[in-house]
Amino acid sequence: MKTDFGTMLKLTSKEVRQLIRSGQYTSHTAGLGKGKLQANLAIMPEEYALDFMRFCQRNSKPCPLVGVTDTGDPNMGTLGHDIDIRTDVPSYFLYEEGRLSGVGEDITEIWREDFVAFALGCSFTFEHALISAGIPLWHIENDTTVPMFRSNIETVPAGPFSGPMVVSMRAIDERILPQVLEICRGFPLAHGAPVHWGHPKKIGIADISRPDWGDPYPIEDGQVPVFWACGVTPQVAIERAKLPICITHKPGHMLITEVADTAEIPIVA
Amino acid sequence: MKTDFGTMLKLTSKEVRQLIRSGQYTSHTAGLGKGKLQANLAIMPEEYALDFMRFCQRNSKPCPLVGVTDTGDPNMGTLGHDIDIRTDVPSYFLYEEGRLSGVGEDITEIWREDFVAFALGCSFTFEHALISAGIPLWHIENDTTVPMFRSNIETVPAGPFSGPMVVSMRAIDERILPQVLEICRGFPLAHGAPVHWGHPKKIGIADISRPDWGDPYPIEDGQVPVFWACGVTPQVAIERAKLPICITHKPGHMLITEVADTAEIPIVA
Repeated sequence: MKTDFGTMLKLTSKEVRQLIRSGQYTSHTAGLGKGKLQANLAIMPEEYALDFMRFCQRNSKPCPLVGVTDTGDPNMGTLGHDIDIRTDVPSYFLYEEGRLSGVGEDITEIWREDFVAFALGCSFTFEHALISAGIPLWHIENDTTVPMFRSNIETVPAGPFSGPMVVSMRAIDERILPQVLEICRGFPLAHGAPVHWGHPKKIGIADISRPDWGDPYPIEDGQVPVFWACGVTPQVAIERAKLPICITHKPGHMLITEVADTAEIPIVA
Repeated sequence: MKTDFGTMLKLTSKEVRQLIRSGQYTSHTAGLGKGKLQANLAIMPEEYALDFMRFCQRNSKPCPLVGVTDTGDPNMGTLGHDIDIRTDVPSYFLYEEGRLSGVGEDITEIWREDFVAFALGCSFTFEHALISAGIPLWHIENDTTVPMFRSNIETVPAGPFSGPMVVSMRAIDERILPQVLEICRGFPLAHGAPVHWGHPKKIGIADISRPDWGDPYPIEDGQVPVFWACGVTPQVAIERAKLPICITHKPGHMLITEVADTAEIPIVA
Protein backbone atom coordinates (compact mmCIF):
# COMPACT_ATOMS: atom_id res chain seq x y z
CA MET A 1 0.00 0.00 0.00
CA LYS A 2 1.40 3.40 -0.95
CA THR A 3 1.40 6.34 1.47
CA ASP A 4 0.14 9.71 0.19
CA PHE A 5 2.19 12.92 0.19
CA GLY A 6 0.03 14.77 2.76
CA THR A 7 0.67 12.03 5.32
CA MET A 8 4.38 11.98 4.45
CA LEU A 9 4.77 15.70 5.20
CA LYS A 10 3.97 15.08 8.88
CA LEU A 11 6.57 12.37 9.39
CA THR A 12 10.12 12.54 10.73
CA SER A 13 13.07 11.89 8.43
CA LYS A 14 13.51 8.45 9.99
CA GLU A 15 9.86 7.54 9.44
CA VAL A 16 9.97 8.79 5.85
CA ARG A 17 13.08 6.71 5.18
CA GLN A 18 11.44 3.60 6.63
CA LEU A 19 8.39 4.00 4.32
CA ILE A 20 10.71 4.50 1.37
CA ARG A 21 12.74 1.44 2.37
CA SER A 22 9.64 -0.76 2.58
CA GLY A 23 8.38 0.46 -0.81
CA GLN A 24 5.38 2.27 0.64
CA TYR A 25 6.55 5.64 -0.69
CA THR A 26 8.17 5.98 -4.12
CA SER A 27 7.59 9.62 -5.12
CA HIS A 28 9.61 12.86 -4.83
CA THR A 29 11.04 14.08 -1.52
CA ALA A 30 10.66 17.90 -1.80
CA GLY A 31 9.53 19.22 1.59
CA LEU A 32 9.84 15.84 3.34
CA GLY A 33 11.89 15.11 6.49
CA LYS A 34 11.84 18.82 7.41
CA GLY A 35 15.12 20.32 8.48
CA LYS A 36 17.25 17.39 7.36
CA LEU A 37 19.86 17.43 4.63
CA GLN A 38 18.75 15.78 1.39
CA ALA A 39 21.30 14.47 -1.08
CA ASN A 40 21.83 13.51 -4.69
CA LEU A 41 23.23 10.02 -5.19
CA ALA A 42 25.80 8.46 -7.51
CA ILE A 43 26.99 4.86 -7.27
CA MET A 44 29.79 3.44 -9.41
CA PRO A 45 32.53 0.79 -9.42
CA GLU A 46 35.57 1.59 -7.26
CA GLU A 47 37.68 1.73 -10.43
CA TYR A 48 36.13 5.17 -11.18
CA ALA A 49 35.70 6.41 -7.61
CA LEU A 50 39.02 8.25 -7.20
CA ASP A 51 38.48 10.21 -10.41
CA PHE A 52 34.89 10.98 -9.44
CA MET A 53 36.06 12.29 -6.05
CA ARG A 54 38.64 14.43 -7.83
CA PHE A 55 35.87 15.72 -10.12
CA CYS A 56 33.75 16.63 -7.07
CA GLN A 57 36.69 18.34 -5.31
CA ARG A 58 37.49 20.40 -8.42
CA ASN A 59 33.85 21.31 -9.03
CA SER A 60 32.54 21.69 -5.51
CA LYS A 61 29.78 24.16 -6.39
CA PRO A 62 27.87 21.78 -8.72
CA CYS A 63 29.18 18.65 -6.91
CA PRO A 64 29.36 19.30 -3.15
CA LEU A 65 30.38 15.95 -1.68
CA VAL A 66 28.59 15.25 1.61
CA GLY A 67 29.20 11.51 1.99
CA VAL A 68 31.04 8.52 0.56
CA THR A 69 30.75 4.84 1.50
CA ASP A 70 33.50 2.31 1.97
CA THR A 71 33.85 0.07 -1.10
CA GLY A 72 31.08 -2.56 -1.09
CA ASP A 73 29.44 -1.18 2.06
CA PRO A 74 25.84 -0.05 1.40
CA ASN A 75 25.67 1.90 4.67
CA MET A 76 26.21 5.65 4.57
CA GLY A 77 27.10 5.85 8.27
CA THR A 78 28.28 9.45 8.35
CA LEU A 79 24.84 10.68 7.21
CA GLY A 80 22.71 8.47 9.48
CA HIS A 81 23.16 5.39 11.62
CA ASP A 82 20.57 3.33 9.72
CA ILE A 83 20.98 4.44 6.10
CA ASP A 84 21.06 1.65 3.50
CA ILE A 85 21.84 3.20 0.16
CA ARG A 86 20.30 0.23 -1.72
CA THR A 87 16.76 0.82 -0.45
CA ASP A 88 16.48 4.28 1.10
CA VAL A 89 16.01 6.34 -2.07
CA PRO A 90 12.44 6.36 -3.51
CA SER A 91 13.50 5.76 -7.10
CA TYR A 92 16.80 4.94 -8.84
CA PHE A 93 18.09 5.38 -12.40
CA LEU A 94 20.40 2.69 -13.80
CA TYR A 95 22.89 3.78 -16.47
CA GLU A 96 24.89 1.39 -18.64
CA GLU A 97 27.58 2.77 -20.99
CA GLY A 98 26.19 6.27 -20.31
CA ARG A 99 22.61 5.42 -21.27
CA LEU A 100 19.59 5.17 -19.01
CA SER A 101 18.75 1.47 -19.05
CA GLY A 102 16.40 1.05 -16.10
CA VAL A 103 14.38 2.61 -13.30
CA GLY A 104 13.80 0.86 -9.97
CA GLU A 105 12.86 1.35 -6.34
CA ASP A 106 15.39 -1.04 -4.80
CA ILE A 107 18.88 -1.87 -6.07
CA THR A 108 19.71 -4.66 -3.61
CA GLU A 109 19.75 -7.23 -6.42
CA ILE A 110 22.29 -5.32 -8.52
CA TRP A 111 24.52 -4.04 -5.66
CA ARG A 112 28.11 -5.19 -6.09
CA GLU A 113 31.08 -5.66 -3.79
CA ASP A 114 33.08 -3.11 -5.79
CA PHE A 115 30.47 -0.33 -5.63
CA VAL A 116 31.15 3.03 -3.98
CA ALA A 117 28.22 5.38 -3.26
CA PHE A 118 28.52 9.16 -3.21
CA ALA A 119 26.03 11.62 -1.69
CA LEU A 120 26.06 15.21 -2.98
CA GLY A 121 24.37 18.23 -1.41
CA CYS A 122 21.32 19.65 -3.19
CA SER A 123 19.41 22.89 -3.66
CA PHE A 124 16.64 22.00 -1.19
CA THR A 125 18.96 23.19 1.60
CA PHE A 126 19.44 26.77 0.37
CA GLU A 127 15.83 27.00 -0.86
CA HIS A 128 14.71 26.13 2.66
CA ALA A 129 17.04 28.81 4.05
CA LEU A 130 15.75 31.45 1.60
CA ILE A 131 12.11 30.66 2.41
CA SER A 132 12.91 30.78 6.14
CA ALA A 133 14.35 34.27 5.56
CA GLY A 134 11.03 35.34 3.99
CA ILE A 135 12.23 35.17 0.38
CA PRO A 136 9.53 33.62 -1.82
CA LEU A 137 10.41 31.14 -4.56
CA TRP A 138 7.90 31.04 -7.40
CA HIS A 139 8.51 27.42 -8.44
CA ILE A 140 7.81 26.15 -4.94
CA GLU A 141 4.67 28.27 -4.53
CA ASN A 142 3.47 26.99 -7.90
CA ASP A 143 4.64 23.39 -7.53
CA THR A 144 6.78 23.36 -10.68
CA THR A 145 10.31 22.08 -11.25
CA VAL A 146 13.05 24.68 -11.29
CA PRO A 147 14.39 25.36 -14.84
CA MET A 148 17.85 23.96 -15.58
CA PHE A 149 20.20 24.86 -18.44
CA ARG A 150 23.45 23.59 -19.92
CA SER A 151 25.75 26.61 -19.51
CA ASN A 152 28.96 27.46 -21.36
CA ILE A 153 30.89 27.27 -18.06
CA GLU A 154 33.17 24.24 -18.33
CA THR A 155 33.78 21.98 -15.36
CA VAL A 156 37.38 21.15 -14.39
CA PRO A 157 37.85 17.61 -15.75
CA ALA A 158 39.09 14.58 -13.78
CA GLY A 159 39.80 11.29 -15.53
CA PRO A 160 36.75 10.41 -17.67
CA PHE A 161 34.55 13.07 -16.02
CA SER A 162 34.04 16.42 -17.76
CA GLY A 163 31.41 18.56 -19.45
CA PRO A 164 29.39 21.73 -19.08
CA MET A 165 28.19 23.04 -15.74
CA VAL A 166 24.42 22.72 -15.53
CA VAL A 167 22.77 25.67 -13.75
CA SER A 168 19.34 26.15 -12.21
CA MET A 169 17.52 29.50 -12.47
CA ARG A 170 15.27 31.35 -10.02
CA ALA A 171 14.03 34.94 -10.51
CA ILE A 172 14.94 37.20 -7.58
CA ASP A 173 13.91 40.79 -6.76
CA GLU A 174 16.88 42.96 -7.54
CA ARG A 175 16.66 44.75 -4.17
CA ILE A 176 17.19 41.54 -2.17
CA LEU A 177 19.88 40.06 -4.41
CA PRO A 178 22.72 40.92 -1.97
CA GLN A 179 20.82 39.16 0.84
CA VAL A 180 20.27 36.08 -1.37
CA LEU A 181 23.98 35.92 -2.25
CA GLU A 182 24.95 36.23 1.42
CA ILE A 183 22.55 33.52 2.60
CA CYS A 184 23.55 31.07 -0.14
CA ARG A 185 27.26 31.59 0.40
CA GLY A 186 26.66 30.22 3.91
CA PHE A 187 25.77 26.83 2.41
CA PRO A 188 28.90 25.62 0.62
CA LEU A 189 27.59 22.04 0.75
CA ALA A 190 24.43 23.09 -1.12
CA HIS A 191 25.94 24.80 -4.20
CA GLY A 192 26.89 27.98 -2.29
CA ALA A 193 26.49 31.43 -3.82
CA PRO A 194 25.02 31.73 -7.34
CA VAL A 195 27.53 31.42 -10.20
CA HIS A 196 25.91 34.18 -12.30
CA TRP A 197 23.04 36.64 -12.39
CA GLY A 198 21.55 39.07 -14.85
CA HIS A 199 22.78 38.02 -18.29
CA PRO A 200 21.80 34.51 -19.42
CA LYS A 201 23.57 34.91 -22.79
CA LYS A 202 26.91 35.49 -21.04
CA ILE A 203 26.77 31.93 -19.73
CA GLY A 204 25.55 30.48 -23.02
CA ILE A 205 21.80 30.45 -22.43
CA ALA A 206 20.13 31.64 -25.65
CA ASP A 207 16.49 31.41 -24.58
CA ILE A 208 15.63 31.69 -20.89
CA SER A 209 12.06 30.53 -21.61
CA ARG A 210 13.23 27.13 -22.89
CA PRO A 211 15.10 25.22 -20.15
CA ASP A 212 16.96 22.00 -20.97
CA TRP A 213 15.28 20.38 -17.95
CA GLY A 214 12.40 21.48 -15.72
CA ASP A 215 9.73 24.12 -16.27
CA PRO A 216 9.90 27.79 -17.37
CA TYR A 217 10.07 30.36 -14.54
CA PRO A 218 8.56 33.84 -15.07
CA ILE A 219 10.81 36.89 -14.56
CA GLU A 220 8.75 39.89 -13.37
CA ASP A 221 9.67 43.57 -13.58
CA GLY A 222 12.33 44.37 -11.01
CA GLN A 223 13.54 40.77 -10.93
CA VAL A 224 16.82 39.33 -12.24
CA PRO A 225 17.46 35.76 -13.37
CA VAL A 226 19.87 34.19 -10.87
CA PHE A 227 21.82 31.02 -11.69
CA TRP A 228 23.10 28.42 -9.25
CA ALA A 229 25.43 25.49 -9.96
CA CYS A 230 23.18 22.45 -10.27
CA GLY A 231 23.38 18.81 -9.18
CA VAL A 232 22.50 17.66 -12.70
CA THR A 233 26.12 18.57 -13.61
CA PRO A 234 27.58 15.31 -12.22
CA GLN A 235 24.79 13.32 -13.93
CA VAL A 236 25.80 14.82 -17.30
CA ALA A 237 29.47 14.12 -16.51
CA ILE A 238 28.60 10.53 -15.62
CA GLU A 239 26.66 10.07 -18.86
CA ARG A 240 29.53 11.51 -20.91
CA ALA A 241 32.03 9.25 -19.10
CA LYS A 242 30.09 6.23 -20.41
CA LEU A 243 30.80 4.12 -17.33
CA PRO A 244 29.88 0.45 -17.87
CA ILE A 245 27.47 0.79 -14.94
CA CYS A 246 26.34 3.63 -12.71
CA ILE A 247 23.28 4.22 -10.52
CA THR A 248 21.84 7.59 -9.51
CA HIS A 249 18.68 8.75 -7.74
CA LYS A 250 15.78 9.69 -10.02
CA PRO A 251 15.81 13.53 -10.09
CA GLY A 252 13.79 14.96 -7.21
CA HIS A 253 13.76 11.58 -5.45
CA MET A 254 16.54 12.21 -2.99
CA LEU A 255 18.26 10.51 -0.08
CA ILE A 256 16.92 12.01 3.16
CA THR A 257 19.70 11.98 5.76
CA GLU A 258 19.81 12.41 9.54
CA VAL A 259 22.07 15.46 9.37
CA ALA A 260 20.52 18.89 10.07
CA ASP A 261 20.41 20.93 6.87
CA THR A 262 22.03 23.83 8.72
CA ALA A 263 24.90 21.65 10.03
CA GLU A 264 28.39 23.01 9.49
CA ILE A 265 29.66 19.58 8.41
CA PRO A 266 27.75 16.55 7.09
CA ILE A 267 28.35 14.20 10.00
CA VAL A 268 25.49 12.72 12.04
CA ALA A 269 25.86 13.23 15.80
CA MET B 1 72.21 32.60 -1.82
CA LYS B 2 69.34 32.55 0.64
CA THR B 3 66.79 35.37 0.81
CA ASP B 4 65.92 36.82 4.22
CA PHE B 5 62.42 36.93 5.71
CA GLY B 6 62.08 40.72 5.69
CA THR B 7 62.63 40.78 1.94
CA MET B 8 60.22 37.86 1.47
CA LEU B 9 57.39 39.73 3.22
CA LYS B 10 57.33 42.33 0.44
CA LEU B 11 57.02 39.84 -2.43
CA THR B 12 53.96 38.54 -4.27
CA SER B 13 52.89 34.92 -3.87
CA LYS B 14 54.29 34.14 -7.31
CA GLU B 15 57.65 35.72 -6.48
CA VAL B 16 57.81 33.87 -3.16
CA ARG B 17 57.06 30.59 -4.90
CA GLN B 18 59.82 31.20 -7.44
CA LEU B 19 62.40 31.81 -4.70
CA ILE B 20 61.25 28.66 -2.94
CA ARG B 21 61.44 26.70 -6.19
CA SER B 22 64.99 27.82 -6.87
CA GLY B 23 66.08 26.96 -3.33
CA GLN B 24 66.70 30.58 -2.33
CA TYR B 25 64.12 30.45 0.46
CA THR B 26 63.68 27.36 2.65
CA SER B 27 62.08 28.67 5.84
CA HIS B 28 58.51 29.00 7.16
CA THR B 29 55.77 30.75 5.19
CA ALA B 30 53.71 32.46 7.95
CA GLY B 31 52.74 35.92 6.70
CA LEU B 32 54.15 35.39 3.20
CA GLY B 33 52.25 35.80 -0.11
CA LYS B 34 49.71 38.02 1.67
CA GLY B 35 46.08 37.31 0.94
CA LYS B 36 46.70 33.99 -0.77
CA LEU B 37 45.54 30.59 0.46
CA GLN B 38 48.31 28.50 2.02
CA ALA B 39 47.97 24.74 2.22
CA ASN B 40 49.21 21.65 4.02
CA LEU B 41 50.55 18.94 1.72
CA ALA B 42 50.34 15.14 1.65
CA ILE B 43 51.69 12.99 -1.18
CA MET B 44 51.14 9.23 -1.37
CA PRO B 45 50.86 6.34 -3.85
CA GLU B 46 47.53 6.16 -5.73
CA GLU B 47 46.80 2.87 -3.98
CA TYR B 48 45.98 4.85 -0.80
CA ALA B 49 44.49 7.95 -2.42
CA LEU B 50 40.83 6.92 -2.46
CA ASP B 51 40.89 6.04 1.24
CA PHE B 52 42.71 9.26 2.07
CA MET B 53 40.09 11.28 0.17
CA ARG B 54 37.38 9.43 2.08
CA PHE B 55 39.22 10.28 5.32
CA CYS B 56 39.31 13.97 4.33
CA GLN B 57 35.61 13.98 3.36
CA ARG B 58 34.63 12.38 6.67
CA ASN B 59 36.85 14.68 8.71
CA SER B 60 36.57 17.93 6.83
CA LYS B 61 37.26 20.17 9.83
CA PRO B 62 40.80 18.84 10.50
CA CYS B 63 41.31 17.83 6.83
CA PRO B 64 39.70 20.41 4.51
CA LEU B 65 40.67 19.26 1.02
CA VAL B 66 41.46 22.21 -1.26
CA GLY B 67 43.27 20.44 -4.11
CA VAL B 68 44.24 17.06 -5.53
CA THR B 69 46.48 16.24 -8.49
CA ASP B 70 45.96 13.71 -11.24
CA THR B 71 47.99 10.56 -10.60
CA GLY B 72 51.63 11.16 -11.50
CA ASP B 73 51.08 14.82 -12.38
CA PRO B 74 53.16 17.16 -10.18
CA ASN B 75 51.12 20.23 -11.22
CA MET B 76 48.39 21.44 -8.88
CA GLY B 77 46.58 23.33 -11.62
CA THR B 78 43.43 24.21 -9.69
CA LEU B 79 45.49 26.18 -7.13
CA GLY B 80 47.77 28.02 -9.54
CA HIS B 81 48.81 27.78 -13.17
CA ASP B 82 52.50 27.30 -12.42
CA ILE B 83 52.52 25.20 -9.24
CA ASP B 84 54.94 22.27 -9.21
CA ILE B 85 54.35 20.29 -6.07
CA ARG B 86 57.87 18.75 -6.19
CA THR B 87 59.70 22.05 -5.73
CA ASP B 88 57.30 24.74 -4.52
CA VAL B 89 57.23 23.92 -0.80
CA PRO B 90 60.20 25.25 1.25
CA SER B 91 60.82 21.99 3.11
CA TYR B 92 59.45 18.43 2.88
CA PHE B 93 59.24 15.52 5.33
CA LEU B 94 59.64 12.01 3.95
CA TYR B 95 57.93 9.18 5.84
CA GLU B 96 58.59 5.48 5.29
CA GLU B 97 56.45 2.89 7.08
CA GLY B 98 55.05 5.71 9.24
CA ARG B 99 58.44 6.99 10.38
CA LEU B 100 60.14 10.24 9.47
CA SER B 101 63.09 9.13 7.36
CA GLY B 102 64.20 12.32 5.66
CA VAL B 103 63.92 16.06 5.24
CA GLY B 104 64.50 17.85 1.92
CA GLU B 105 63.86 20.97 -0.09
CA ASP B 106 63.10 19.33 -3.44
CA ILE B 107 61.44 15.96 -4.07
CA THR B 108 61.91 15.79 -7.85
CA GLU B 109 64.28 12.85 -7.50
CA ILE B 110 61.83 10.72 -5.51
CA TRP B 111 58.62 11.71 -7.35
CA ARG B 112 56.86 8.66 -8.80
CA GLU B 113 54.36 8.09 -11.60
CA ASP B 114 51.88 6.63 -9.11
CA PHE B 115 51.97 9.59 -6.68
CA VAL B 116 48.90 11.69 -5.86
CA ALA B 117 49.32 15.02 -4.04
CA PHE B 118 46.72 16.51 -1.72
CA ALA B 119 46.53 20.11 -0.52
CA LEU B 120 44.62 20.82 2.69
CA GLY B 121 43.46 24.19 3.99
CA CYS B 122 45.29 25.60 7.03
CA SER B 123 44.77 27.90 9.99
CA PHE B 124 46.65 30.86 8.46
CA THR B 125 43.44 31.71 6.58
CA PHE B 126 41.20 32.17 9.62
CA GLU B 127 43.99 33.75 11.67
CA HIS B 128 44.38 36.34 8.91
CA ALA B 129 40.59 36.93 8.99
CA LEU B 130 40.58 37.31 12.80
CA ILE B 131 43.47 39.78 12.76
CA SER B 132 41.77 41.74 9.94
CA ALA B 133 38.69 41.97 12.19
CA GLY B 134 40.85 43.51 14.94
CA ILE B 135 41.10 40.37 17.07
CA PRO B 136 44.66 40.00 18.40
CA LEU B 137 46.36 36.59 18.50
CA TRP B 138 49.06 36.30 21.15
CA HIS B 139 51.17 33.65 19.40
CA ILE B 140 51.49 35.81 16.28
CA GLU B 141 52.31 38.97 18.26
CA ASN B 142 54.96 37.00 20.18
CA ASP B 143 56.25 34.93 17.26
CA THR B 144 55.60 31.55 18.88
CA THR B 145 54.03 28.39 17.45
CA VAL B 146 50.41 27.78 18.39
CA PRO B 147 50.03 24.95 20.97
CA MET B 148 48.59 21.69 19.61
CA PHE B 149 47.13 18.77 21.55
CA ARG B 150 46.02 15.21 20.88
CA SER B 151 42.32 15.35 21.87
CA ASN B 152 39.99 12.50 22.82
CA ILE B 153 37.78 13.33 19.81
CA GLU B 154 38.12 10.41 17.41
CA THR B 155 38.24 10.94 13.66
CA VAL B 156 35.90 8.92 11.43
CA PRO B 157 38.18 6.23 9.98
CA ALA B 158 38.62 5.39 6.29
CA GLY B 159 40.70 2.38 5.23
CA PRO B 160 44.06 2.56 7.04
CA PHE B 161 43.50 6.16 8.18
CA SER B 162 42.24 6.82 11.73
CA GLY B 163 43.27 8.31 15.05
CA PRO B 164 42.63 11.21 17.40
CA MET B 165 41.73 14.68 16.21
CA VAL B 166 44.60 17.05 16.91
CA VAL B 167 43.44 20.50 18.02
CA SER B 168 45.18 23.86 18.19
CA MET B 169 44.47 26.31 21.04
CA ARG B 170 44.25 30.10 21.14
CA ALA B 171 43.01 32.12 24.14
CA ILE B 172 40.12 34.43 23.24
CA ASP B 173 38.37 37.17 25.26
CA GLU B 174 35.05 35.72 26.38
CA ARG B 175 33.15 38.80 25.18
CA ILE B 176 34.23 38.37 21.56
CA LEU B 177 33.85 34.59 21.44
CA PRO B 178 30.56 34.74 19.43
CA GLN B 179 32.25 36.98 16.86
CA VAL B 180 35.20 34.58 16.60
CA LEU B 181 32.88 31.60 16.08
CA GLU B 182 30.93 33.49 13.38
CA ILE B 183 34.04 34.58 11.50
CA CYS B 184 35.64 31.13 11.57
CA ARG B 185 32.46 29.36 10.47
CA GLY B 186 32.76 31.38 7.27
CA PHE B 187 36.00 29.53 6.42
CA PRO B 188 34.98 25.87 6.01
CA LEU B 189 38.16 25.21 4.00
CA ALA B 190 40.31 26.47 6.90
CA HIS B 191 39.01 24.29 9.77
CA GLY B 192 35.75 26.29 10.16
CA ALA B 193 34.32 27.06 13.60
CA PRO B 194 36.20 25.85 16.70
CA VAL B 195 35.37 22.29 17.84
CA HIS B 196 35.40 23.17 21.57
CA TRP B 197 35.96 25.99 24.01
CA GLY B 198 36.18 26.40 27.75
CA HIS B 199 36.94 22.96 29.18
CA PRO B 200 40.16 21.33 28.01
CA LYS B 201 39.58 18.21 30.16
CA LYS B 202 36.31 17.49 28.35
CA ILE B 203 38.27 16.86 25.16
CA GLY B 204 40.99 14.90 26.91
CA ILE B 205 43.55 17.61 27.54
CA ALA B 206 44.94 17.12 31.06
CA ASP B 207 47.42 19.99 31.19
CA ILE B 208 46.84 23.02 28.97
CA SER B 209 50.35 24.31 29.75
CA ARG B 210 51.99 21.27 28.16
CA PRO B 211 51.08 21.02 24.46
CA ASP B 212 51.99 17.92 22.44
CA TRP B 213 53.37 20.21 19.72
CA GLY B 214 54.15 23.94 19.66
CA ASP B 215 54.56 26.42 22.49
CA PRO B 216 52.45 27.20 25.60
CA TYR B 217 49.91 30.03 25.20
CA PRO B 218 48.95 32.17 28.23
CA ILE B 219 45.27 32.39 29.19
CA GLU B 220 44.53 35.75 30.85
CA ASP B 221 41.61 36.67 33.12
CA GLY B 222 38.45 36.97 31.03
CA GLN B 223 39.82 34.69 28.32
CA VAL B 224 38.72 31.18 27.40
CA PRO B 225 40.83 28.50 25.73
CA VAL B 226 39.37 27.89 22.26
CA PHE B 227 40.19 24.76 20.26
CA TRP B 228 40.20 24.39 16.47
CA ALA B 229 40.56 21.20 14.45
CA CYS B 230 44.19 21.10 13.34
CA GLY B 231 46.01 20.09 10.17
CA VAL B 232 48.37 17.89 12.20
CA THR B 233 45.44 15.41 12.40
CA PRO B 234 46.06 13.96 8.91
CA GLN B 235 49.81 13.77 9.63
CA VAL B 236 49.08 11.62 12.71
CA ALA B 237 46.66 9.49 10.65
CA ILE B 238 49.30 9.05 7.95
CA GLU B 239 51.91 8.01 10.52
CA ARG B 240 49.49 5.51 12.09
CA ALA B 241 48.61 4.10 8.64
CA LYS B 242 52.30 3.18 8.18
CA LEU B 243 52.24 3.80 4.42
CA PRO B 244 55.37 2.43 2.71
CA ILE B 245 56.04 5.98 1.52
CA CYS B 246 54.45 9.37 2.09
CA ILE B 247 55.68 12.95 1.77
CA THR B 248 54.31 15.99 3.64
CA HIS B 249 55.34 19.60 4.01
CA LYS B 250 57.51 20.39 7.06
CA PRO B 251 55.09 21.98 9.58
CA GLY B 252 54.82 25.74 9.02
CA HIS B 253 56.49 25.43 5.61
CA MET B 254 53.38 25.51 3.47
CA LEU B 255 52.41 25.55 -0.18
CA ILE B 256 51.51 29.15 -1.16
CA THR B 257 48.79 29.06 -3.81
CA GLU B 258 47.39 31.63 -6.25
CA VAL B 259 43.86 31.40 -4.80
CA ALA B 260 42.62 34.31 -2.67
CA ASP B 261 42.32 33.20 0.97
CA THR B 262 38.79 34.64 1.05
CA ALA B 263 37.72 32.73 -2.10
CA GLU B 264 34.50 30.77 -1.82
CA ILE B 265 36.04 27.78 -3.62
CA PRO B 266 39.71 26.83 -4.08
CA ILE B 267 39.94 27.29 -7.84
CA VAL B 268 42.36 29.76 -9.43
CA ALA B 269 40.71 32.16 -11.89
